[in-house]
Formats: sequence, C-alpha cells, structure tokens
Amino acid sequence: MIAELTNAEIDELLHEQVVGRIGCHADGVTYVVPVIYAYDGESVHVATIEGQKVRMMRANPSVCFEVDEYAAPGRWRSAIVQGTYEEAEGDEQAASLALLAERFARGGDGQGARRPEAHDRQTVCFRIRVREATGRAVSR
Amino acid sequence: MIAELTNAEIDELLHEQVVGRIGCHADGVTYVVPVIYAYDGESVHVATIEGQKVRMMRANPSVCFEVDEYAAPGRWRSAIVQGTYEEAEGDEQAASLALLAERFARGGDGQGARRPEAHDRQTVCFRIRVREATGRAVSR
Repeated sequence: MIAELTNAEIDELLHEQVVGRIGCHADGVTYVVPVIYAYDGESVHVATIEGQKVRMMRANPSVCFEVDEYAAPGRWRSAIVQGTYEEAEGDEQAASLALLAERFARGGDGQGARRPEAHDRQTVCFRIRVREATGRAVSR
Repeated sequence: MIAELTNAEIDELLHEQVVGRIGCHADGVTYVVPVIYAYDGESVHVATIEGQKVRMMRANPSVCFEVDEYAAPGRWRSAIVQGTYEEAEGDEQAASLALLAERFARGGDGQGARRPEAHDRQTVCFRIRVREATGRAVSR
C-alpha cells in the first residue's frame, strides 16, 4: 500500500532525519551525494567543503533533495524536495552553523556530522530552499 | 578522516546494501528517488512500476546511483555510480527478476522490496550499467 504523505508528514520527516541526498545536474552530469543537514521548516541547511557538489550547484542551483527512512520490514517513508541552492555568507552563514550545531546537539551528531567551523576557509554553508515537496509511505 | 574506497570496497558496498537512490535528469528537472535493488557486479537491477523515474530515464538514460551506510557514530561509507539506464525485456527481465528474488530471499526482503511479478503489466524491469564509480569512507 502506497500513501501520499501530507505536507505536515513531509515536514515531520524532514525534521527527523539527519542524512539526506542532494541531486544536482550540470554540464550533462547528474550527481547524487549524501549530506548531513538541519531543516528549519523552509530550507535545508548544510555545512560542507568546496568540491564537486558545490561547483555543480553554483552552476545550476535548481536541485533535488531526498530523505528516506526504513522503519520496519516492509514499511518505509520518503520525501523528495525540489529546491533552490543558496550560498550563505556572513550572518546567514552564522545562522546556518548555529542551526546545525543545535540540531546535532540534540541527537544528530551520532550520524557523523561534520563539525562546522566558521573559520575554516574551505567551509561552504548553503541552504536548499524548498519550492515543492512530495512524500510517500509504503506499508506491506 | 576521509578515505577513497578501492574498487573492491565499492563493489562490496554495492553488494551489501539493498536500498539505493537513483538521480536522473530530464527537461530541466533533477529527481532523486529511493529504490530497492540487486547488484550483479556490473549492473544494478530494479523492478518498479511505470512512473516519473522511468519516464525520465527513458528520456535521458545517463543516470547516477548512490548508496550510503552509517555504521556507527561518525563512521560512514558511500558509493556514487555514473551509469546507463537499460530497460530489460524478455529473457533479460526474467534474469533481473530472478536476481532480485534471490537477493531478497537471503535477507533483503526485510527492507520493503516490491515483490516482482513478471505478469504484472505495470512492472518495469531495468538495470543501471555501471560506467564508473567512486566511494568514500569517513571516520572521526
């Protein structure tokens, strides 16, 4: 049985999870990469380092973000977001880092989060602003 | 500490996992969707139903496939594949369904796999043929 999630259920799933996957596309290449994130109800916040995904999202800021959860045998939920990449600097970067620190302090740090370091020159903070989201729950 | 996985380690991770995410792109939209799969050492095999991901991969067969695993706090591995979508019919479909059935019989069925039904008219079997793959292990 497949059920569409409501907006509230999608929101809940995005708040619960700490690992999601970004899908981005540039120069004919599609790339999917896992990230640790925090969700504020409007955007997904990520602190990472310079690399392929950042280069691709700068080139094409229209991206996908996905989370899934396998709760029990035959029972899973997933959410798929279409969103816009926005790089955070200055006050926005500080706000993203604070949100991530708060998220990981209450249980997310067990998942291998990168410890955000505002003074690390390689650090790139960005958010994916949710434009639309769909979700599904499967139970068998 | 981030280490690149060897080809053998990537292969092992692809054999172990049963849930992966496909990234595809068509008509300006990037889409990431979780799937249950079986890996034969060369391709990822999936049985699904007609829908958005199948339409998009038919339009643009150059796709990405991703798996990740969070083994313990601060310790995770991931693999990212660039591959080609190929739809399976006839004998190829039967071979894919047999591989999936065998994979789920030895422990994957706890993950919510769709039971493949060769006579289900909506069923689409496809494989993603691996062109190149990279993998990373993070430990903190």
